[in-house]
Amino acid sequence: MISERELTFLLYEVFETERLLERPRYAHYSRFEFDAIVGAAMRLVTDYFAPHNHDGDACEPRFEAGAAKLIVQTGAAWKAFAEAGFLSAHWSVEEGGLGVPEVILRAALANLFAANVSTAGYPFLTIGAANLLRSFGSPEQKQRFLPAMGDGRSAGTMCLTEPGQGSALGDIRTQALVQPDGSYRIFGQKMFISGGDQDFTDNIVHMVLARIPGEPAGAKGISLFLVPKWLVNEDGARGARNDVALAGLLHKMGWHNTTSTVLSFGENGGAQGYLLGQKNHGLGHMFQLMNEARIGVGLIGASLAYRGFAESLAYARERQQGRLPSQKDPLSPQVRLVEHADVRRLLIAQKAIAEGALALCLYASTLFEDQHSHPDAQERERATLLLDVLTPVVKSWPAKYGCSSNDMAIQVLGGAGYTREYPLEQLYRDQRLNPIHEGAEAIHGLDLLGRKVAAKAGAGFKLFCQAVSADIELAQTQPELRRLASTLTEVLARLKRVSAVLIAAQPDNPNLALANATAYLDVFGCVTVAWMWLRQARVACHALAIGSTASGAEYYHGKLQTARYYIQRELPVAITQFAVLEQFERTPFDMKEEWFQ
Amino acid sequence: MISERELTFLLYEVFETERLLERPRYAHYSRFEFDAIVGAAMRLVTDYFAPHNHDGDACEPRFEAGAAKLIVQTGAAWKAFAEAGFLSAHWSVEEGGLGVPEVILRAALANLFAANVSTAGYPFLTIGAANLLRSFGSPEQKQRFLPAMGDGRSAGTMCLTEPGQGSALGDIRTQALVQPDGSYRIFGQKMFISGGDQDFTDNIVHMVLARIPGEPAGAKGISLFLVPKWLVNEDGARGARNDVALAGLLHKMGWHNTTSTVLSFGENGGAQGYLLGQKNHGLGHMFQLMNEARIGVGLIGASLAYRGFAESLAYARERQQGRLPSQKDPLSPQVRLVEHADVRRLLIAQKAIAEGALALCLYASTLFEDQHSHPDAQERERATLLLDVLTPVVKSWPAKYGCSSNDMAIQVLGGAGYTREYPLEQLYRDQRLNPIHEGAEAIHGLDLLGRKVAAKAGAGFKLFCQAVSADIELAQTQPELRRLASTLTEVLARLKRVSAVLIAAQPDNPNLALANATAYLDVFGCVTVAWMWLRQARVACHALAIGSTASGAEYYHGKLQTARYYIQRELPVAITQFAVLEQFERTPFDMKEEWFQ
Repeated sequence: MISERELTFLLYEVFETERLLERPRYAHYSRFEFDAIVGAAMRLVTDYFAPHNHDGDACEPRFEAGAAKLIVQTGAAWKAFAEAGFLSAHWSVEEGGLGVPEVILRAALANLFAANVSTAGYPFLTIGAANLLRSFGSPEQKQRFLPAMGDGRSAGTMCLTEPGQGSALGDIRTQALVQPDGSYRIFGQKMFISGGDQDFTDNIVHMVLARIPGEPAGAKGISLFLVPKWLVNEDGARGARNDVALAGLLHKMGWHNTTSTVLSFGENGGAQGYLLGQKNHGLGHMFQLMNEARIGVGLIGASLAYRGFAESLAYARERQQGRLPSQKDPLSPQVRLVEHADVRRLLIAQKAIAEGALALCLYASTLFEDQHSHPDAQERERATLLLDVLTPVVKSWPAKYGCSSNDMAIQVLGGAGYTREYPLEQLYRDQRLNPIHEGAEAIHGLDLLGRKVAAKAGAGFKLFCQAVSADIELAQTQPELRRLASTLTEVLARLKRVSAVLIAAQPDNPNLALANATAYLDVFGCVTVAWMWLRQARVACHALAIGSTASGAEYYHGKLQTARYYIQRELPVAITQFAVLEQFERTPFDMKEEWFQ
Repeated sequence: MISERELTFLLYEVFETERLLERPRYAHYSRFEFDAIVGAAMRLVTDYFAPHNHDGDACEPRFEAGAAKLIVQTGAAWKAFAEAGFLSAHWSVEEGGLGVPEVILRAALANLFAANVSTAGYPFLTIGAANLLRSFGSPEQKQRFLPAMGDGRSAGTMCLTEPGQGSALGDIRTQALVQPDGSYRIFGQKMFISGGDQDFTDNIVHMVLARIPGEPAGAKGISLFLVPKWLVNEDGARGARNDVALAGLLHKMGWHNTTSTVLSFGENGGAQGYLLGQKNHGLGHMFQLMNEARIGVGLIGASLAYRGFAESLAYARERQQGRLPSQKDPLSPQVRLVEHADVRRLLIAQKAIAEGALALCLYASTLFEDQHSHPDAQERERATLLLDVLTPVVKSWPAKYGCSSNDMAIQVLGGAGYTREYPLEQLYRDQRLNPIHEGAEAIHGLDLLGRKVAAKAGAGFKLFCQAVSADIELAQTQPELRRLASTLTEVLARLKRVSAVLIAAQPDNPNLALANATAYLDVFGCVTVAWMWLRQARVACHALAIGSTASGAEYYHGKLQTARYYIQRELPVAITQFAVLEQFERTPFDMKEEWFQ
């Protein structure tokens, strides 16, 4: 799990979360209560989520009589989570919540993901679906559906993908037919719907994208509908079964205990659906949920990477094997794995990824927080623009490098890591979903380079560059960090130049100008994480300068050394992508289909 | 599966396998017969191996009453393989084989690996164990055990690893106690023994490393023993059960249908073992099998990568999804995945890895062949030295990049690739073993940099550099290849320089000089594969110059483009490692254990 020390460092030393207490909205809170919330989540981990992570993987949900059956521990964990108030913890007090800040909620959830991502998937999706209802639902809709999503009687899902369309949301075909009374009936099939059915809540609220016939083609004619599994009476009591059927379960490489479903809407006359928000603005509305879910997927990637790091570190500290090159005597005692240089490389590389990704995701959560609760309107706008440009990075970087990190965790254990007696192989399988769901990697490259960096005359990107530069300037005052700061200065300048060139090339030849968008996303992400490491290093330097206890000092030395590792050793690999981008490198672009044989 | 076109290109156009027919040993063969052998293996693939790849994964071997139980298709495939004569096909005619050249046998096996690696694991191990007996067995030992390993009544295993020792073979503890009659009894436990038990052969011959008490410590006191599961009478008939017990099955992430076992020797008085070869030379003898197995693991990595490439290419050609950035009209028809630039990148990158790795492994097989059958003693010596230095690379590069290739295959399919309805996720799980077994990656880095490149005053490394230079010279005569050739010239020069520096530093500070050995292995491998691509590009250029049919030309254009891709786009990433090596980059080396918190 993610150590308390690490969360404390990121929350309070790096991102100064305590300053939230100055905002009127959080005046009733204290640091002590923030810690209590993180602690309460940790107890859920220990008592409910961690114990059945392996069982949920070994005993997959079954399709029985048209419904999904899960191991009973899943429902018990859900119930405990709901009873602890976590489903509505971040709702305002007026809504019936506790008004917990976003960044504290995310920090609390991280350990649930690390412990058991596939059971934690249900609350993760439900929180997102409820947020959509909170934002776009009419008072009547909220009154009818929201309370049950806050207390755990109802779960929520997001229904976007269809069998024939995959990542291209503009092409969805599910239809919403207007009835004489003005209500809607939904017809169509959705695929890869996580949590689309399960056996532990009274109801499930599906957030469904569909088209109303006669409306514009493509993305501009998509509307958002709330489609409950069971109809709900005005008083909130459960009514008749709606026309939503579980057509089948998909069997995946990982995330076994999160059902992945095919859902059929309207096989018997049409599923009753409620238009949420404005007609034809469904994709825009859904983007609120998607953007939230994208930060969430980043955090999941970071959490799984951290877990693999912690597990492989513990093993490497314990397990004796082999000798150092300098030990020629075969009777000399074996050393522990951590004493081998290459094992330390595998560990520091994981630390760089896991803690770098975690910092990035918690930073995104502070932006999300500022976007909603900062007292200054200009700061709210700033946070919105910055988060917009960073969202594709926050989604993609922890997912991609999380896979690589969990790969290294297996390698530290060797053969043992490949067996199911250790949790590493499951982490590796679970992690592999993250570069796929919530938009496959390439989609985010196109989003970043084709939209986000140029949006609003590049306002978000400029804010990003300013924010990085501000940290570089602070770092330059510390002699130990000068070299790292100057590396980052150069790299940032190059990112600016290459961005300008690529943006300028898009109007003339968008296909070629965007051909290497995935490489752009990668190097943008690596620069961002290097920034996160520079910031952590600065905080560590400062803490060392003002004096720490011996064991405290060791933690900070580890941060400093990892920042050096990332910027001196990993960043140079990533920046080879600059040459690819600057030259509009086109060997894959020019590869003809007929040449693949 | 690996296309006939690809095998023909590598075997006959690139590696000129037909020239083997000039050797007296192969005078009775023709190209037609070589093709018939590869074709016979392909029929085994279609009829026996491919059909149960998924079932073998879904229905893992079970431990029942002290024995391993497998799905029946496994035994049927084994029987068909044995009956087709493949277990002894490469044995000389005098030994009862067909004298099939190594490189033809390996090309034939590649498709079995691609189709069903875990069932193919049994013949793979048995062929290796039988080769050990052929090399080091006494006439009496061969007479007693070899025929059954050639006709499929007996399988074979290699028993190296023990629970307490992992990769450090010098530390094994299994004991061989001399009996009054001069025979040996074996006592100890072996772990991760692939094929250590199964239910489809009469017998299993274990090749076991053990120590005779009183002999030197470490690697110099290890002997090799043949320990049959069932004793065998002098006439070859099966006798009593030997004291070898299946202590348990290990459950793995992939390779489900290859049993991974814990074996107990000597729980009831001692397992009868036969000393194979010279006392205390066991590790040296075993290295014959290990070196063979290492080339085999490379080939498995290449084959699984190729399979993933072929499957994802087929999907990308079929599946329609989304539009190009230039298509703004939402009603314009969707394009197929292969038309998206980033999908083509994922495909050409896989092609570069899979075909580059396959070329490397078949090249290693031609060296193995020359080592044994070249009529010129100097050429045999040359092949031996070259193969020695290349073995760690052949083992490691296809395994490491094979994982990355299978990762990309999943990404092409997106959500579908993550489900078990498609074979990609199984390939990804199966592939992950390859960087672990037959020596984890780090072991091969230390082997290459700590031993192989400096061995015999660097004779093998010099031959490697000469061989690469020879191909560069040939490529330089072709205008289209000049740029690629000059890139490789520079990179090779840099590899020479950095090797000299690292070798020179070892006596003074071996721990630091070898700290980045894994990075050295990586860049050495990438240079080697770039060479393989330059050679393929030269052959393709030549074929295009002399004129090909239109469809033939497309194949060669694909080879040329992929060579460009690899050398212009992938190689620059790899050579960032040179800076790490030249600077003795030491952030992981200097990371203190206490700093990990």
